Amino acid sequence: VPESDRQNLYPMAFTVNGLDRQANHRSDVPFVDSLRDAPSSHCLLFNGDKTFAPGGLPQPIVGDVPQHALFLGIDHENIAWFAAASPIEEELVDLRSLALSGTASHEMLGRLAQARALLHWHERHGFCANCGAATEMADAGYRRHCASCTADHFPRTDPVIIIAVKRQGKILLGRQAVWKEGMFSTLAGFMEPGETIEEAARREVFEESGIRVGEARILFNQPWPFPASLMIGLVGEALNDDIVVDPKELETARWFSRDDIAAMMAGNHAGGCHTPPPMAIAHRLIAAAMAEG
Amino acid sequence: VPESDRQNLYPMAFTVNGLDRQANHRSDVPFVDSLRDAPSSHCLLFNGDKTFAPGGLPQPIVGDVPQHALFLGIDHENIAWFAAASPIEEELVDLRSLALSGTASHEMLGRLAQARALLHWHERHGFCANCGAATEMADAGYRRHCASCTADHFPRTDPVIIIAVKRQGKILLGRQAVWKEGMFSTLAGFMEPGETIEEAARREVFEESGIRVGEARILFNQPWPFPASLMIGLVGEALNDDIVVDPKELETARWFSRDDIAAMMAGNHAGGCHTPPPMAIAHRLIAAAMAEG
Repeated sequence: VPESDRQNLYPMAFTVNGLDRQANHRSDVPFVDSLRDAPSSHCLLFNGDKTFAPGGLPQPIVGDVPQHALFLGIDHENIAWFAAASPIEEELVDLRSLALSGTASHEMLGRLAQARALLHWHERHGFCANCGAATEMADAGYRRHCASCTADHFPRTDPVIIIAVKRQGKILLGRQAVWKEGMFSTLAGFMEPGETIEEAARREVFEESGIRVGEARILFNQPWPFPASLMIGLVGEALNDDIVVDPKELETARWFSRDDIAAMMAGNHAGGCHTPPPMAIAHRLIAAAMAEG
Repeated sequence: VPESDRQNLYPMAFTVNGLDRQANHRSDVPFVDSLRDAPSSHCLLFNGDKTFAPGGLPQPIVGDVPQHALFLGIDHENIAWFAAASPIEEELVDLRSLALSGTASHEMLGRLAQARALLHWHERHGFCANCGAATEMADAGYRRHCASCTADHFPRTDPVIIIAVKRQGKILLGRQAVWKEGMFSTLAGFMEPGETIEEAARREVFEESGIRVGEARILFNQPWPFPASLMIGLVGEALNDDIVVDPKELETARWFSRDDIAAMMAGNHAGGCHTPPPMAIAHRLIAAAMAEG
């Protein structure tokens, strides 16, 4: 199945936002100012992880876009979208719950993801990692500049591998102690300097579960703005089946049969186990591994 | 062709390093100390982008590993490898030239890539981006801690898309003015917050060349430690053929025929054009796009 069909058939959260980011024009201050001052311009508001959503539905303010707002892009109707941190304390919804609820449109979730990742980066990167001086926002939110040492800093996007590991019709899933009871998911972890995607997946699976992965294939990817991850999803073949859990990383890990998985996805597993929801790449990877057999 | 075969048949630089990174044991200070003090331990030395390479061949020092060295991992012979910045000024080779020369082993290049990416991160991240205070190294080089605000910082890995765009048997390649004469390569750019890999590729290609990409597939990936990129390589199908170059990004971009590409790869193109070398993912993507037709 081609990627475009795979991504569109059952869209994962945050994978489409329908905005033209106009990346080549962000450093054009009069251009961005003119968009910010347009009466039709929209601005999404966030207080930390939560966005302004009266009645549970995210809603941008129209016009009066704050000077410190970040530029997200221009939509199909030629409306410019911005995002800003705000001290607002009422009618807030956190982005993860919103994605789970299915009440927001796919494009709205994508815009909120872009906004949340950028806003979080600014919140935590007000100083220059190179010299310690205060930095200032530039390029409508896509750069921070240090006037002291002249360093430029760009938003982080942290690649994370997440993998459905198969062996003889079973799938390896694990759970962290902090997750809600019965939830099992695919193993995942941050990539490190000097690794390929496949090697990172093999390293993480071995560290967490003692399972060696041979062949591994990239299937899907998903922006995951909590705070700044890019989830890169694989399906891989296990070379052994004796699980040795690292208790610092996982509470437990198990091989689940096809029948187990089908029941977990349907929400009627006899042992009370379940998989992550369809908005998450883990769900899609488990489904793909099942389909491959 | 499965990924493992594709990666191994003609290995790209920096894709394998043969080390067990022992990521779960890095925070165990006595463990790392015992490895650092072992007489057999190896340490790669870098001064900026250049590594110690007497006679042009990279060579670790054996024993006497500096206290500030970063831990890379343990090799097949149970030897621990470290890396350290050093003021050494003679017998240095830069890592890019070394990869081009083909004189170092594939695993040595992978170790040097891991070392270079980590060392560069420490060089440029001595202060806390959250509060501006000086930070200190932890976890044998894989974390920096801020005692002032308690923030932890982790090495950056910046995902970059790089794509061979096809249309009716031709391939789109561009060049930057600073490249050596005649060099043309696949278009590339940094991913942004809230993007999928495929959307980032479409955005970059449109920004740089005015070409719209439809279907796009991820084929290869390569760590690229200059300073901290993860190259994610795709082949994609163009939807139009009228190139509009952004002069801020590219000097020019062109459609090359199969005959052009074959001559460029063989080094006998009549117009003096050539492709990047086989050690680079761009070369592999161009070859894959050619093979697909």
